[in-house]
Amino acid sequence: MIMPMKVLEENLNKHVALLLKDNRVLDGVLTGYDDYMNMVLDDVEEAGEESTKKLGTVIVRGSNVVRIVPK
Amino acid sequence: MIMPMKVLEENLNKHVALLLKDNRVLDGVLTGYDDYMNMVLDDVEEAGEESTKKLGTVIVRGSNVVRIVPK
Amino acid sequence: MIMPMKVLEENLNKHVALLLKDNRVLDGVLTGYDDYMNMVLDDVEEAGEESTKKLGTVIVRGSNVVRIVPK
Amino acid sequence: MIMPMKVLEENLNKHVALLLKDNRVLDGVLTGYDDYMNMVLDDVEEAGEESTKKLGTVIVRGSNVVRIVPK
Amino acid sequence: MIMPMKVLEENLNKHVALLLKDNRVLDGVLTGYDDYMNMVLDDVEEAGEESTKKLGTVIVRGSNVVRIVPK
Amino acid sequence: MIMPMKVLEENLNKHVALLLKDNRVLDGVLTGYDDYMNMVLDDVEEAGEESTKKLGTVIVRGSNVVRIVPK
Amino acid sequence: MIMPMKVLEENLNKHVALLLKDNRVLDGVLTGYDDYMNMVLDDVEEAGEESTKKLGTVIVRGSNVVRIVPK
Repeated sequence: MIMPMKVLEENLNKHVALLLKDNRVLDGVLTGYDDYMNMVLDDVEEAGEESTKKLGTVIVRGSNVVRIVPK
Repeated sequence: MIMPMKVLEENLNKHVALLLKDNRVLDGVLTGYDDYMNMVLDDVEEAGEESTKKLGTVIVRGSNVVRIVPK
Repeated sequence: MIMPMKVLEENLNKHVALLLKDNRVLDGVLTGYDDYMNMVLDDVEEAGEESTKKLGTVIVRGSNVVRIVPK
Repeated sequence: MIMPMKVLEENLNKHVALLLKDNRVLDGVLTGYDDYMNMVLDDVEEAGEESTKKLGTVIVRGSNVVRIVPK
Repeated sequence: MIMPMKVLEENLNKHVALLLKDNRVLDGVLTGYDDYMNMVLDDVEEAGEESTKKLGTVIVRGSNVVRIVPK
Repeated sequence: MIMPMKVLEENLNKHVALLLKDNRVLDGVLTGYDDYMNMVLDDVEEAGEESTKKLGTVIVRGSNVVRIVPK
Repeated sequence: MIMPMKVLEENLNKHVALLLKDNRVLDGVLTGYDDYMNMVLDDVEEAGEESTKKLGTVIVRGSNVVRIVPK
């Protein structure tokens, strides 16, 4: 068995896709996180319902996260 | 009586279907979880309202989970 | 006076109907629960807005539960 | 001054009407409750948007309760 | 500076209007409350989107309260 | 660096505009608050989607607050 | 690895864009925050669905924050 937080740790400095509750998807490099699943991503591209934009560094509040997909 | 967490434990490395609050269903192999029902699934196929996609490994935040069905 | 958790205990291994926040109803045998009202049901039939399906064993996250009706 | 929990206590084994967040109203005899306002009702009649049904005993999760009206 | 709970205390046995999250407004005499802002009101008149009704005593779960207006 | 609670303290007895989750805006004099961001406002004018009304003193439950703007 | 709170600290007195749950975006200088991600911004411009307005100083309740983008 592997702990969810351990999988986050294994993906540090790797590309992940974050799905948020508002259906936005953030693609970027996971550079940090904490116990609340607050996360820091670098080189982020955000895909919303209609468009995509580059955001650079992003801090995401954990309570908005649905799922994380390592890429 | 069986504890819900015990049923998760019994389904480690087995196929489960996860229903999320946004109606997505994730089918995959349960490889980990924690006390908040955060979960790790491998070989995930996600079925949404209109389409299905393969996601590989997925970390799901427990607060989005409605129900888990062992398969 | 009877405690709500005590009524759950009395209904162990009996049929209950669980109403969830998304209006799904799960009918099944209550085989377990914990302090968060996470629950395990066996022989589940789930009735949604339009259809019914057999699910076997189901773990339900307590935060999605509206009410439980012993049958 | 009277504590809200004290008013619940005074209404043990009496008729109350419970309004839930999904607009359902449960009429029944309050037979139990706990600190989270989880409640047990007997002889319940539930009135929804369109119809009424008899449910017998019902356990309600406190987080779904809007208000309680002793009758 | 005055604490919000102190203002509740000052309005004990006085008329207040409670706005709930579902837009209902309860007018009544505040006879009790606790640390979670659960409240007891007497002689309540409830105004919803379309109609008004007399409810007598009402226990309101604090998590549904938006604002309280002393009258 | 300044703590958010410190900014509230600096605005005691001054005009602030409170945006609530339901899009109501309360303009009034901040006369109190607590650690949960429950707040007391005096001389409140509330602007909703369609109309404005004078409310006098208002106690706001912190969980409904989106942002506070000192004026 | 970098902690999310550390990235906030590094952006003190710098421009950030805050996305809120109601889709508002606040652009301003981050002058403070606390452990709940409550934040203080100065020189704020708020962009909503249809219009933009200058707000000066704003205190944002952390529970409304989706993501923070340093600029």
